[in-house]
Amino acid sequence: MKKHNFYAGPSILPEYTKEKTAEAVLNFAGTGLSVMEVSHRSKEFVAVVDEAVALVKELLKVPEGYSVLFLQGGASLQFLMAPYNLMGLKAAYLNTGVWSKKAMKEAKFFGEVVEVASSADANFNYIPKQFDTPADASYLHYTSNNTIFGTKVNAPEANVPLVADMSSDIFSRPVDVAKHDLIYAGAQKNLGPSGATLVIVKDEALGKIDRVIPTMLDYRIHIQNESMFNTPSTLPVFACLQTLRWLKELGGVEAIEKINIEKAAVLYDEIDRNKLFQSTVPNKEDRSLMNVTFVMAPEFAELEKEFLDFATAKGMIGIKGHRSVGGFRASTYNAMPIESVQALVDTMQEFEKKH
Amino acid sequence: MKKHNFYAGPSILPEYTKEKTAEAVLNFAGTGLSVMEVSHRSKEFVAVVDEAVALVKELLKVPEGYSVLFLQGGASLQFLMAPYNLMGLKAAYLNTGVWSKKAMKEAKFFGEVVEVASSADANFNYIPKQFDTPADASYLHYTSNNTIFGTKVNAPEANVPLVADMSSDIFSRPVDVAKHDLIYAGAQKNLGPSGATLVIVKDEALGKIDRVIPTMLDYRIHIQNESMFNTPSTLPVFACLQTLRWLKELGGVEAIEKINIEKAAVLYDEIDRNKLFQSTVPNKEDRSLMNVTFVMAPEFAELEKEFLDFATAKGMIGIKGHRSVGGFRASTYNAMPIESVQALVDTMQEFEKKH
Ligand SMILES: Cc1ncc(COP(=O)(O)O)c(C=O)c1O
Ligand SMILES: Cc1ncc(COP(=O)(O)O)c(C=O)c1O
Ligand SMILES: [Mg+2]
Ligand SMILES: [Mg+2]
Ligand SMILES: [Mg+2]
Ligand SMILES: [Mg+2]
Repeated sequence: MKKHNFYAGPSILPEYTKEKTAEAVLNFAGTGLSVMEVSHRSKEFVAVVDEAVALVKELLKVPEGYSVLFLQGGASLQFLMAPYNLMGLKAAYLNTGVWSKKAMKEAKFFGEVVEVASSADANFNYIPKQFDTPADASYLHYTSNNTIFGTKVNAPEANVPLVADMSSDIFSRPVDVAKHDLIYAGAQKNLGPSGATLVIVKDEALGKIDRVIPTMLDYRIHIQNESMFNTPSTLPVFACLQTLRWLKELGGVEAIEKINIEKAAVLYDEIDRNKLFQSTVPNKEDRSLMNVTFVMAPEFAELEKEFLDFATAKGMIGIKGHRSVGGFRASTYNAMPIESVQALVDTMQEFEKKH
Repeated sequence: MKKHNFYAGPSILPEYTKEKTAEAVLNFAGTGLSVMEVSHRSKEFVAVVDEAVALVKELLKVPEGYSVLFLQGGASLQFLMAPYNLMGLKAAYLNTGVWSKKAMKEAKFFGEVVEVASSADANFNYIPKQFDTPADASYLHYTSNNTIFGTKVNAPEANVPLVADMSSDIFSRPVDVAKHDLIYAGAQKNLGPSGATLVIVKDEALGKIDRVIPTMLDYRIHIQNESMFNTPSTLPVFACLQTLRWLKELGGVEAIEKINIEKAAVLYDEIDRNKLFQSTVPNKEDRSLMNVTFVMAPEFAELEKEFLDFATAKGMIGIKGHRSVGGFRASTYNAMPIESVQALVDTMQEFEKKH
């Protein structure tokens, strides 16, 4: 049976990425060695990092004066590195749920964290839009896509530089990098396997803070060493490169955004139409294009388990919702083909007919 | 031509690890999905971590009361995490070269670092054996195998707990874990690809320090969450599991130690015998079983480049020495077959005949 991979992360990757990675695990760049067993300083692997960095810059139109890094530790380590490197006495955070909260927790270590707005009052099912950012904050941090609550934010207007956790929607739509001092993302949604973390940082934003930064947490160290201060996560970075090549071939972020909008529309339309289901995000403009969260309509609440089993039997994988939202979550990342979205829609319709 | 992989890390892995990983990149545990695209919380992947932890405990005879973790960030992040979690006002370090120095640098952040001994006076070509460890040090840190200088240390006698960076010789020989509060190792030598870091930590050594520890740097957080506080490096951990299975099948660390001793002996004997070459580590008991460092004998110094080219043409990969030692380094990790060591020896003999 065909499987439809709706995992929230690690999540579906392009066939291209999987094939090229499987090949390189056995024979990398014609070396006769596995990509897992060559020195990160070999010319073959340095070429991987160089090309990956160049493609990130090209695809996201990264302006001059920014560095692109592949680090380890996931976005969670960035929750710490961001304030360590950039926060003076105060930083502002937009709280759109779990991930923002975790980011705020690490920043509190360094000074005053101003929560400029929060949608906690409605279990983070919307994006607060009216708020003020203190002019003396070092930055405004936001989570561009909340993987758990199924919401998305556009880069907020602010009179301070932005810092963004783009873990779950990077490369899914264009981004104005110039508004940001820092963008970071765990690779394991739109880019590659877990183990690599993408960082895009504005060079001149660094070195302004009067604080000793441990070596491994200092962006300047990683910039000076071109992501090779210590051994990078070689195989994950190799796999990321394959996805970047695939995305470029497909037409880049502008092209994939169109496809993502179309895929999400097919699913949201069915959720809205189908009497059994409803979206958890009432405001359409706040709905994520990557993580479509929905629940049973109140009258059909008791069917939740039955639908999960029904859909699982039809090959849908990973659609159980996160425990803080309940219901279902279908992640429709870049690599997800519209056929899989359609298969889920068909399953919802079939289930509706039974009830 | 057959390639002989002498890279110092990332480095040679067993055929078994490569084959099983290539398979799982296409179809993991019969899921029809890649190991790169399944949730780390899926039952299939949780089983990977559980088995890997169990095998580490079995192979290293880890006593009760220790936790085994797979983290990210490499051994370099452990240079920071070790003192963050374990160091009070003072810690002791045995300085056997670059890696020890880097570890000391991060510890200085937290208090007084006592260098109990150093072999800097002879470019780290021996292991200091007579030294005192201050009784009020939180621990004595040592690098069990210095990858760059080709030396190995046995667990020093000390009246304080030990902390060991075993990045380049873990699983190559038995270790008395009970003497240690902490053992850590980047995976990319004897275990798997880079991107995973193995940590073995004594539970009751934690929580004694009166310091706020950032979430991602706190071993207790990772223990509570069984290495899944955030997304672990899934594919690297999967590959590590394959190597652990391979090692168990082969007879464990006791069996591989015998093989390692034999392999190293073949190479050191040739270095000693061959008039063109000499070891960089005069004291035989200090010689690493994993990284065999050697240089041209002084009378033949000008042949260095010629030998490198000659050996490269014969399929030897990665034997150029680290710039801080010069000459050559042949890493003979667990997965290296004796045939590759013999091929290098043959090459050295052939080169000798030419001169
Ligand atoms: C938006 C967002 N931020 C941060 C994280 C944490 O990333 P990591 O597990 O790589 O630390 C996630 C993980 O799913 C996420 O979705
Ligand atoms: C003994 C030793 N310690 C630490 C490191 C650094 O490890 P990583 O690159 O994973 O941070 C290395 C790397 O080669 C090493 O050989
Ligand atoms: Mg370069
Ligand atoms: Mg509906
Ligand atoms: Mg468990
Ligand atoms: Mg000799």
